[in-house]
Amino acid sequence: MTKKRIGVFGLGQFGTSLISFLKSHDAEIKAMDRDVEKVAAVVDDCHDAVALDLKDQKKVNAELKNLDILIITVGESPLPAILLSALKDELNIGRIICRAHGSTTEKILLKIGIEKTDIFSPETEAAKDMARKLTTPYSADNLPLSADEEIWNVEIPKDWDGHSIKDLDIRKKYAVNLICIQRKDMTTYDFAPTPDLVLQTGDKVHLLGKKDRLGEILKHIEG
Amino acid sequence: MTKKRIGVFGLGQFGTSLISFLKSHDAEIKAMDRDVEKVAAVVDDCHDAVALDLKDQKKVNAELKNLDILIITVGESPLPAILLSALKDELNIGRIICRAHGSTTEKILLKIGIEKTDIFSPETEAAKDMARKLTTPYSADNLPLSADEEIWNVEIPKDWDGHSIKDLDIRKKYAVNLICIQRKDMTTYDFAPTPDLVLQTGDKVHLLGKKDRLGEILKHIEG
Repeated sequence: MTKKRIGVFGLGQFGTSLISFLKSHDAEIKAMDRDVEKVAAVVDDCHDAVALDLKDQKKVNAELKNLDILIITVGESPLPAILLSALKDELNIGRIICRAHGSTTEKILLKIGIEKTDIFSPETEAAKDMARKLTTPYSADNLPLSADEEIWNVEIPKDWDGHSIKDLDIRKKYAVNLICIQRKDMTTYDFAPTPDLVLQTGDKVHLLGKKDRLGEILKHIEG
Repeated sequence: MTKKRIGVFGLGQFGTSLISFLKSHDAEIKAMDRDVEKVAAVVDDCHDAVALDLKDQKKVNAELKNLDILIITVGESPLPAILLSALKDELNIGRIICRAHGSTTEKILLKIGIEKTDIFSPETEAAKDMARKLTTPYSADNLPLSADEEIWNVEIPKDWDGHSIKDLDIRKKYAVNLICIQRKDMTTYDFAPTPDLVLQTGDKVHLLGKKDRLGEILKHIEG
């Protein structure tokens, strides 16, 4: 498998953080900003870093062509997201993820063809979390996972079909915890499934465990 | 109990979102920004909204005095966070929560007496989440809780002391799921406690369930 080519346009606090978190992963990261100094600051963290003025159409075409993913992180103005999103098909960019700038921009981005789930707002998400923390006593942000623990949401492996949770003995076999189940064709989640529940192909589960143990289950899913 | 007085300084995307999320809760919200238009836009969502120039020391004193919590959300410059944090004791503000602007600002805020846990960066948190999502297949952001479900992190009620998880039958009694346990004096969490585990005063647990059911347990904890 060739490495994923990921472009990050906009090297403010979000873009710079994103690159530093991505650098340990197996992807080819291209960092872009119109500000030369911001570009220079991330050179060591990525595969390629270029100063890019969006008015320079020729350079835009050359740098963005055939990226697997382009993330537009610019926080000050909605214009880069709108301009670059419009070029998605022309430049054969696989997927574009855009920072949101209010509902008007969102409407435009949706019309251009950006998926709703690919429009994000760090501010809105963080504000929601903070409001909850300030008003709900005891509320936990999330589960206190250690660095090598993750929660995965997957469709069950084929060979689990027709077996009960008890019979599968997932906890003993994989050292992974089944936290909740979404039955096929249902939109609600069951956080307290009985051990006698019989799983069926198409059911989705949230599994919690060490990364390597989850990886073992992944082999069954993909195999 | 009198209502908590919460001040929000800075009405950009984060501050405005925060106020809209807070408005349904039982708190007295005061919105502040130097920009009159931004203040006007949130008037209906809060108890009090005022245009405030930080150079107007007299007005700053009058508006911020005796707030229970002041949240400084300004994203463009670190100066408001530094200026206002320095006034914490003088103005008898209970707690100040600040948006982070890089490591230098953070050092200054810590010196002025802001708690590390009260310094936040929406961008960094969101960037971390996105990096994980882009590189880990199947990784779930979080558990898919519905609007009335929450995860709480609490010290166990006194009357659970000396009882096993099985004996307490928490799931049946409260319709709440015990997801993990942190034993007293331990820093690690156990996501797969055996039903025979005997709880002791001082143990902390993460509980998942409907808000009202969690509230019933709260009565035991506080009572």
